[in-house]
Amino acid sequence: MNWTVGWCRDPADVPSEFVPARVPGAVQLDWAAAQGWPDYTVGDNFQAYGWMEDVHWLYRAPLDFPALTASQRLFFSCLGIDYRFEVRLDGQVIHTQEGMFAPSEVDLTPLAAPGAVLEVLVFPAPKSRPFPNDRAQADQSCKPAVSYGWDWHPRLIPLGIWDEAKLEIRPAVHLQSAETLYVLAEDYSAAELTVSVCVSQPGRGSLHWRLLDPSGTVLCSASADTFSSVNTLTGHLGTPKLWWPNGQGDPTLYTSVVELWNEAGEIAETREQKLGFRRIRLVMAPGAWEKPVPFPATRSEPPITLEINGRQIFGKGSNWVNPEIFPGLITEETYRPLLTLAKEAHFNLLRVWGGGIVNKESFFDLCDTLGLLVWQEFPLACNDYEGTPAYLATLDRESRAILTRLRRHACLALWCGGNELFNSWSRMTDQSPALRLLNRNCYDLDPQTPFLMTAPVMGMAHGNYLFRYADGREVFQVMPQASATAYTEFGCPGPSPAEYLKTFIPADQLFPPRPGTAWETHHAFNAWVGDTWLQLQMLESYFGPAPDLETLVANGEWLQCEGYKCLFEEARRQKPACAMALNWCYNEPWPSAAGNSLISWPRAPKPAYAAVAAACRPTLASARLPRFSWTDGELFCPELWLLHDGPDSLPAGCVEATLRIGGQETFLLAWNHPPLEPNTNLAGPIIRVRLPRVEAEEFTLHLRVPGAPERESVYRLQYRFKVSVKAIGAAQLNVSPTGPG
Amino acid sequence: MNWTVGWCRDPADVPSEFVPARVPGAVQLDWAAAQGWPDYTVGDNFQAYGWMEDVHWLYRAPLDFPALTASQRLFFSCLGIDYRFEVRLDGQVIHTQEGMFAPSEVDLTPLAAPGAVLEVLVFPAPKSRPFPNDRAQADQSCKPAVSYGWDWHPRLIPLGIWDEAKLEIRPAVHLQSAETLYVLAEDYSAAELTVSVCVSQPGRGSLHWRLLDPSGTVLCSASADTFSSVNTLTGHLGTPKLWWPNGQGDPTLYTSVVELWNEAGEIAETREQKLGFRRIRLVMAPGAWEKPVPFPATRSEPPITLEINGRQIFGKGSNWVNPEIFPGLITEETYRPLLTLAKEAHFNLLRVWGGGIVNKESFFDLCDTLGLLVWQEFPLACNDYEGTPAYLATLDRESRAILTRLRRHACLALWCGGNELFNSWSRMTDQSPALRLLNRNCYDLDPQTPFLMTAPVMGMAHGNYLFRYADGREVFQVMPQASATAYTEFGCPGPSPAEYLKTFIPADQLFPPRPGTAWETHHAFNAWVGDTWLQLQMLESYFGPAPDLETLVANGEWLQCEGYKCLFEEARRQKPACAMALNWCYNEPWPSAAGNSLISWPRAPKPAYAAVAAACRPTLASARLPRFSWTDGELFCPELWLLHDGPDSLPAGCVEATLRIGGQETFLLAWNHPPLEPNTNLAGPIIRVRLPRVEAEEFTLHLRVPGAPERESVYRLQYRFKVSVKAIGAAQLNVSPTGPG
Repeated sequence: MNWTVGWCRDPADVPSEFVPARVPGAVQLDWAAAQGWPDYTVGDNFQAYGWMEDVHWLYRAPLDFPALTASQRLFFSCLGIDYRFEVRLDGQVIHTQEGMFAPSEVDLTPLAAPGAVLEVLVFPAPKSRPFPNDRAQADQSCKPAVSYGWDWHPRLIPLGIWDEAKLEIRPAVHLQSAETLYVLAEDYSAAELTVSVCVSQPGRGSLHWRLLDPSGTVLCSASADTFSSVNTLTGHLGTPKLWWPNGQGDPTLYTSVVELWNEAGEIAETREQKLGFRRIRLVMAPGAWEKPVPFPATRSEPPITLEINGRQIFGKGSNWVNPEIFPGLITEETYRPLLTLAKEAHFNLLRVWGGGIVNKESFFDLCDTLGLLVWQEFPLACNDYEGTPAYLATLDRESRAILTRLRRHACLALWCGGNELFNSWSRMTDQSPALRLLNRNCYDLDPQTPFLMTAPVMGMAHGNYLFRYADGREVFQVMPQASATAYTEFGCPGPSPAEYLKTFIPADQLFPPRPGTAWETHHAFNAWVGDTWLQLQMLESYFGPAPDLETLVANGEWLQCEGYKCLFEEARRQKPACAMALNWCYNEPWPSAAGNSLISWPRAPKPAYAAVAAACRPTLASARLPRFSWTDGELFCPELWLLHDGPDSLPAGCVEATLRIGGQETFLLAWNHPPLEPNTNLAGPIIRVRLPRVEAEEFTLHLRVPGAPERESVYRLQYRFKVSVKAIGAAQLNVSPTGPG
Repeated sequence: MNWTVGWCRDPADVPSEFVPARVPGAVQLDWAAAQGWPDYTVGDNFQAYGWMEDVHWLYRAPLDFPALTASQRLFFSCLGIDYRFEVRLDGQVIHTQEGMFAPSEVDLTPLAAPGAVLEVLVFPAPKSRPFPNDRAQADQSCKPAVSYGWDWHPRLIPLGIWDEAKLEIRPAVHLQSAETLYVLAEDYSAAELTVSVCVSQPGRGSLHWRLLDPSGTVLCSASADTFSSVNTLTGHLGTPKLWWPNGQGDPTLYTSVVELWNEAGEIAETREQKLGFRRIRLVMAPGAWEKPVPFPATRSEPPITLEINGRQIFGKGSNWVNPEIFPGLITEETYRPLLTLAKEAHFNLLRVWGGGIVNKESFFDLCDTLGLLVWQEFPLACNDYEGTPAYLATLDRESRAILTRLRRHACLALWCGGNELFNSWSRMTDQSPALRLLNRNCYDLDPQTPFLMTAPVMGMAHGNYLFRYADGREVFQVMPQASATAYTEFGCPGPSPAEYLKTFIPADQLFPPRPGTAWETHHAFNAWVGDTWLQLQMLESYFGPAPDLETLVANGEWLQCEGYKCLFEEARRQKPACAMALNWCYNEPWPSAAGNSLISWPRAPKPAYAAVAAACRPTLASARLPRFSWTDGELFCPELWLLHDGPDSLPAGCVEATLRIGGQETFLLAWNHPPLEPNTNLAGPIIRVRLPRVEAEEFTLHLRVPGAPERESVYRLQYRFKVSVKAIGAAQLNVSPTGPG
């Protein structure tokens, strides 16, 4: 289709200018391209887009299609139009909709002739109140709140056709939907398959279904010689090969094929669906019921431990945010590198945060294939979404569309009402109609999949997002004191790489970083509470003023890497009481100057990515470190651990600890550990060594694993050599290993 | 109808003996009456009933009715048959059902002739497993779990027709349902009424509706000249007088009348419904959002503060249990005295515990009239109700029937999935399909009424049920340390009155109480954990061995009264962080020898009832006492408080404290307090007085309120005079009041 787009303030008006439109895309991008505007990701260029959220946008395309036969119909079908819109044909309104996630299919047959003009009028971005310009404006719509501005996302509210839109000629008798679902036997010995096929109208012809294994062999099939509007075929599959998340086994996918044959015996339409057999439950952590609860007694904390196919697994991963400010730009090639990196980081779980979009189909296809579990939130975040009739009606339609589209995916592990809705900054509760509606819809449409009203629920924890807290404690001290059932958001900020910064911060603003420049609009200053996200004051308190950009960035990356290692490894040490470690956040929608993400937009891993990937290895030697910064002569006392998430047991082995400082390497101890059961950790000795007096600015603790270099770990800490008033002789090392505490 | 009943082991058999049956009633009662068995509430007589739970019972009644006209139909309609049953006419099965709460209406017209035999076959009591004989057998049914045995309820599982059953001749065109619901304007300025009327078949005639105020004046009306199967009439009521719970205003009830007129213009059928206009919400306690939550942060505790018509009220009341072992015995006259006593005790809320039945209609009618809010649980308690398809289907039907029947009542304040389901002894979770189903059904059918999956939810507390804990602390020490959002179960046991005990414990077993006698079967020994419920060892530790039954009972009553006063008043002191105080339990289903109830079966208040009623007065002078037992010379330091729940402010006033011991009364202090805002408490001075040396066994603290004797309080404590090694002169009183701590 040959789209153009223009804007006007009054919906009754006609835009005075139409510009070429890319579909899928966003009206802002089309207008900017036509005007020759510079890249919105660079500097403060995005600020020119502000007015566009408040006008009406009219897409136009002349219809170009061959003459239809009597048995054909013409549809305008679209997977997503953002946000409120109406479809017009030659000026006549033929469809209206609020909500970007429910697909639309409009039958044009009785109305359209070639050359007729199809229009899509997109209304201004929804706002529950005219000001202030913040996320609360999204609290009466299913529009992702992040677009209204966040501490890592500029205010820029996309509008327009953001997913596939096309003119389709289809047989009058055609498939409306075809979905294969299953019920697994309790012991996984069989799957009972149900194929639900909706056909546009009863007719002559037949339905054919077959299930293929990964090699393409047909395992079962069924057919119906006649069909009505709603049809059900069934099948029985013995001993299905199970789908497993990354690190636990293969993500085996079968293929279900549904064919509609016309009365001539020809295939009229075909639908294919991948199918992974698995059972997902949220279960209580071992020991959680037994926690002593003295009278007067409240309830036990709710379950958040993932049990996949009967096996409890520790959820390792991150929070996924929109990979683009304009979701219309997203394609499979946006997702693929990011998700491949997630798999390579040993992640098994992504929380798709409720402030962002519900992703396109290719996201879920890739997660199915890569074995990445998806925690899918509905588009509610950090607001009080009041249960007005209009809002509930939109939420009902949109959530049903989301559920119906995604429930078939093997990767879909958990439905969640949205982000931090039960916290003081949102003020929703278990009684909020919107969340009771979502429970209802999830129960009605996907009862086998767990549902949380929000995250965190009681026992789970979000935050902090800093290396060092306002009270002076570092993550090294805070995390061992915490005891959450799951850490589903926690962050450690760092600057973006220097070369990357140069691509979007004007050269004259690059160094030193200052508020009021592109550093600030790209969220290095005054982004969240306190000195975020560059944390210049904190960096200087550790390292002094940096002489240049490269040093500044290196210092920040150092803290981010060690901080994230501490956070992930400490959460893993708390297994099984703790069930998940998901940092905030994985990716970003545009270039940030500093922040918590592991990967710079669009797909460049930061050093923190590698640090997190190392902390998420299935098996590793790990150390619990008391703090980051050390002085000569202090007693350095890291606790050794073996972290092991794998489904196999680990044989007995050895961990050798050495200290490297000032070019000198000292052997500290060798820990001969016993075998480990599958998915269990082991606490090892506590090293106690007095740090030598050496002229150095850092030291490293190396944990070597003879015969298994993939389990080795290195921790890099700051060292401050203080010249003593009396002369010091030789550096002295006192090595005194002790048993676990 | 002239019913008889008999039993057989095989449902295909015919009972060899039929005995007269009382309907409503229970098969056990009919059989026992026919055999001349002694009263099941006395001694251990109930033990003879055990076998009856495992046989089939067949009710029989010949049909006696006049010839029907062409426009008449004959129905067998029943409000409740316990539990699984089928209805047969002349041997042919015409209706089958599982569940005692959904009414049944069977059209006999095409089948029945006068003299035909109607039969109701009642299946054995549902059991998910053959043994052990405990409540877990109820975990796959909607049968109240209490019947399977509890620490205060013998195992005795009723079966049979337990609510109204009748043969009815009705017009072919008749009312199937008529329900008036409303939506209140946000500012209570108006109510929009919706009258839903289902008629058995479309026909000629008309529908007429009117709304009457309490004086009988018609305020609005509507009619329809024709009707279909489903009809809706609407009305608008300006400035409705609101319904208020006890202590907050009048429980104003309007009357909605629906008439079905036949085509001759005659009234064919009429339905009346009482209607109370109120809005009920669960809201966060003042300050609850602001509670400091350090990172890593979990959610805020869920809301449990009742807001009625925009006014936050403290929930005062108790846990209601079945007032009879056989619910078929319950009539309005069972409920009326109990509920009247609840109102007189200043209660405004009854929690209808999920281990028991859902009460008959008259219970809710009375609660509507008396201003008693009802927290209604579904029949799940202390089990893991697994979400099997069969169980979920039954729960779905039963819960829909319960919701549809009760949602119209003004008193219905809160739906709750059941009792203590999220605790280790039940092991259900937020993910349990049964509870997600109940949330779904409540949202679908009664979205305006709050819903809890269970009690307690996080922050609320249940227990303890003792005056003194196993660790030696008394409620006086435990409760001030507790900080629940609501205390929705807590108990303090006491023996039943001596004269009452003589009515059901054989004379030769009466004194001293011993295990292995009717004392034990009536739950004085080995009932719950530890030395419950008589607590002989604990009583002796305070009072020494009792010389006779009367002294023993008096000692136990003393502890129960002072314990309950502490529990209720301390919960009220914790307002507004604490929102409710509901003791376990209010009533009992048969005579208990000792226990937590306030009222002996069937309707005799214990002394504890008066103590609780005093502690629940809208306004009272109150004291926080350090402990029960005191010795001469000790510093007695009660904290004074004013507790005030009323909707009005309280003017400034005075509280005078005196101490009475050994016939001597000493004035301690006068507290001149400022005015109080509505529904607020005030902490007063802490008295500090050294107890005199007097030969006495008790002393009392009197809090007098000049001009308002209804606010006075008296606390009675134990005193132990220890003779000192050196002679003591005159008793010395040091009065040193201090400000609130």
